[in-house]
Amino acid sequence: MINAAIMGYGNIGKAAIEAINEASDFNLVGVISRTLENGDLGKIPIVRSVDELNGVQVVVLCVPSRKVPDLAEEILLKGITTVDCFDIHSEIYDLYVRFDTAAKKGKSMCVTSVGFDPGLDSAIRALLEAAAPKGLTYTNFGPGMSIGHTVAVKEIAGVKDGMSITIPLGAGLHRRMVYVVIEDGVDFNTVSMLIKTDPYFVNDETLVIQVSDLDPISDMGHSTNIKRKGISGTTHNQRFNFDISIDNPAMTAQMMVSAARAVIKRVPGAYTMLHLSPIDLLSGSKEELIRRLV
Amino acid sequence: MINAAIMGYGNIGKAAIEAINEASDFNLVGVISRTLENGDLGKIPIVRSVDELNGVQVVVLCVPSRKVPDLAEEILLKGITTVDCFDIHSEIYDLYVRFDTAAKKGKSMCVTSVGFDPGLDSAIRALLEAAAPKGLTYTNFGPGMSIGHTVAVKEIAGVKDGMSITIPLGAGLHRRMVYVVIEDGVDFNTVSMLIKTDPYFVNDETLVIQVSDLDPISDMGHSTNIKRKGISGTTHNQRFNFDISIDNPAMTAQMMVSAARAVIKRVPGAYTMLHLSPIDLLSGSKEELIRRLV
Repeated sequence: MINAAIMGYGNIGKAAIEAINEASDFNLVGVISRTLENGDLGKIPIVRSVDELNGVQVVVLCVPSRKVPDLAEEILLKGITTVDCFDIHSEIYDLYVRFDTAAKKGKSMCVTSVGFDPGLDSAIRALLEAAAPKGLTYTNFGPGMSIGHTVAVKEIAGVKDGMSITIPLGAGLHRRMVYVVIEDGVDFNTVSMLIKTDPYFVNDETLVIQVSDLDPISDMGHSTNIKRKGISGTTHNQRFNFDISIDNPAMTAQMMVSAARAVIKRVPGAYTMLHLSPIDLLSGSKEELIRRLV
Repeated sequence: MINAAIMGYGNIGKAAIEAINEASDFNLVGVISRTLENGDLGKIPIVRSVDELNGVQVVVLCVPSRKVPDLAEEILLKGITTVDCFDIHSEIYDLYVRFDTAAKKGKSMCVTSVGFDPGLDSAIRALLEAAAPKGLTYTNFGPGMSIGHTVAVKEIAGVKDGMSITIPLGAGLHRRMVYVVIEDGVDFNTVSMLIKTDPYFVNDETLVIQVSDLDPISDMGHSTNIKRKGISGTTHNQRFNFDISIDNPAMTAQMMVSAARAVIKRVPGAYTMLHLSPIDLLSGSKEELIRRLV
């Protein structure tokens, strides 16, 4: 049994509780939250710090990406393994290096940037390059809500509530449709400009739309499409197409739990979904898995 | 540089030469063939046994599945790593165990059952279960030529030449359309019955069709579709769809070369595509791969 704690109780944290409870080889030791009180989650202990829990082997970080670096590093240095769903693609490598140092110092393991993309899609992209090393891969997101972009919108000054929908334009290009409820007395154009110049949005066509209430339009479904057309050896026109249509927090949380199972088998250091062996992500005997899946 | 030899010079062997020549981190030491003569492949040395080649680290076995067990075991015991495309799904686990013993004895590595299915598809199936552990996966093959089934047909007594086309019927069910040129004086019904009762065909609806010449209908293209609908945590209706449309020998050979690159980094023993880390399948620096693919 793997003793896991969850940090954070947003959409992904809630889904992580479900994923851990459904996994027969995991034991949920507690939830680390600034806002919940004991009793809010029935018998699941609520604490403010991982130090208040005994025997935690892995912390599943269900916090906004920008809080991941400091929070995970602190836990890794304590000798406890972490899994996170950090999703700012351009910063992943530097974070991986930072976590690798911390994990080796703390004799713990870390798997960073797990979810559907980065995460499952990362592993798929690598496998497709192994099958056809030359060629182009396009990842097309949406239509659907991007968790990372939505969290980023909510942190913009003047935004009371927000949601970012990704619209695929093909060939890996996207439009961001950002729906915001702004705070009273705040200028919409100022908020809109802050969003459009945020690192999450600056590289994409971004439309900001003011609404009075997000509840009637909130749907956590998301989609991705990965297309690769490439060359195996000297043979052209090898084609690959991968589509997913998912509830985003549920899948992100599930991949973190599966990745936690895999990473605790490794030596101290940092890993991504590119580093983990598919068989280690799954529960069950090696024989049963090989017979069923190979 | 990885010193590789190729055993066998059929469609996959020819494609393996191309894949190795295109890989900047591989050096083709020679081709092991019973029939080719030196000079047939230009400067590439032709030998009858791996013992005649110096410094071979890995042998890429491009021989029919039924010849793989004995040939690979012999090479593994010599301390040389092997990669094969053994494709009889029901026998893979036992072969994996046999190769694991031989590889550990020979202090070599083995990756078995590499190609598109088993192979790439195996890794995909495992990743999809990690994302949605409960649910059903269907693998639908074709339309296209199955290499393993075609080789099996050609080995049936009375068959002069043959080809097996896989037709997907949905939900993982298939029809086999077997086109045969039979030897003079042989009874077609006898040949047809031998094919239909062969382990490769006995579980599928199989039609055997007599033709006078295979050349006008021979096309090495193949397709697979993997569908999974499952549950992440407690969230149902998570959907995944993976399609490939490929030249079969080219992709099988390419995956073997990529798998060879990955497996030589491992400790002695046997592996499948479920065991290899996606990042190890690729050439290039870890930093470049993480920045580009995660």
